[in-house]
Amino acid sequence: MTRESELFAVPARRGRAVRINEGQAIKIINTHGEQVVDTWCFSAEDLTEFMSMEHIRPTLTRIFPRRGDQLVTNRRRPILYFEEDTSPGIHDTLMAACDDYRYGLLGCTEYHDNCTDNLRAAMRRLGLTVPECPSPLNLWMNIPVDSEGNTEWGEPVSKPGDYVVLRAQMDCVVAMSACPQDILPINGRQRAPTEAHYQVLD
Amino acid sequence: MTRESELFAVPARRGRAVRINEGQAIKIINTHGEQVVDTWCFSAEDLTEFMSMEHIRPTLTRIFPRRGDQLVTNRRRPILYFEEDTSPGIHDTLMAACDDYRYGLLGCTEYHDNCTDNLRAAMRRLGLTVPECPSPLNLWMNIPVDSEGNTEWGEPVSKPGDYVVLRAQMDCVVAMSACPQDILPINGRQRAPTEAHYQVLD
Repeated sequence: MTRESELFAVPARRGRAVRINEGQAIKIINTHGEQVVDTWCFSAEDLTEFMSMEHIRPTLTRIFPRRGDQLVTNRRRPILYFEEDTSPGIHDTLMAACDDYRYGLLGCTEYHDNCTDNLRAAMRRLGLTVPECPSPLNLWMNIPVDSEGNTEWGEPVSKPGDYVVLRAQMDCVVAMSACPQDILPINGRQRAPTEAHYQVLD
Repeated sequence: MTRESELFAVPARRGRAVRINEGQAIKIINTHGEQVVDTWCFSAEDLTEFMSMEHIRPTLTRIFPRRGDQLVTNRRRPILYFEEDTSPGIHDTLMAACDDYRYGLLGCTEYHDNCTDNLRAAMRRLGLTVPECPSPLNLWMNIPVDSEGNTEWGEPVSKPGDYVVLRAQMDCVVAMSACPQDILPINGRQRAPTEAHYQVLD
């Protein structure tokens, strides 16, 4: 039987990180249904080893991971097992975390909250400094790719309360950012970023 | 008129790097026609700024770059302009550089030459240490993606002498590895990695 811990929020437009041990899992919940959650995972022993989208794709020979997949690090070792997914399974591995440069190119003239800085801030709350911002697993981000390789900024197809469970294959630190993108419709056509939630499961 | 410099080899299964100034270009030649060349580009001023596949894709809204595209860094600044391409234009941005871990998973029991170590060795020849191995632009690597997101290890569709020209948008260091992959058919069905060549153009 799985023991569920307290429910924690990832506040809208912000990030959080949590350490979990091998065998524990993290349940990440799309509370309001249309929120993209950029997700990273670092080895607790060595932050230069982390979940890597460019290493996951050749391992899976698929650009979209799904339930039942092992998600590997930049040293090709399993770090998270994709155990459950109550959503239609649309997640993205192709797009970098947003950053202030990105919002500048989208027309913002002042600082904009962004997932790259959210990762750094979330890890600092645990006393950790990340060596870089790896390309994230963008949970619920809907990036259709056509046969010519063109991509679109789709709206999420998830619903309120959808969740994924990712089980740690080594001691690790999971970081999440409730993506503050409010210019493109990736967080829904309302372009209104919301909070998400997470729980640590034994 | 473009002045062409000496022709240099990237030996089979090895890497090379070269510094070029803003405005200069590098011509990378698929001498024997079926060789994948993993290609990286770092800012000469700061090696933590580099050409980044995950930042290129959202900028282009396309997973395959082509002639006429600006290739951007992890700070979203143009670093290389994709000026010419005599091949059919099939290149890959999805797959990590091969590494010794990868060949272990493919069944090798001894060390196998690999693009990740080739990058490090090529940069060391210039006295430079890379902070990481970014996901490379895999020139001529043919990774078809179907509508379900499944990928294949295709054979190159290029021919002997095909080349690309990438023009520097800032002072930079270009690194190339003639991919030593000889288990999958990405370097042709003969699975026989070959040399490639490059020239610096004014």
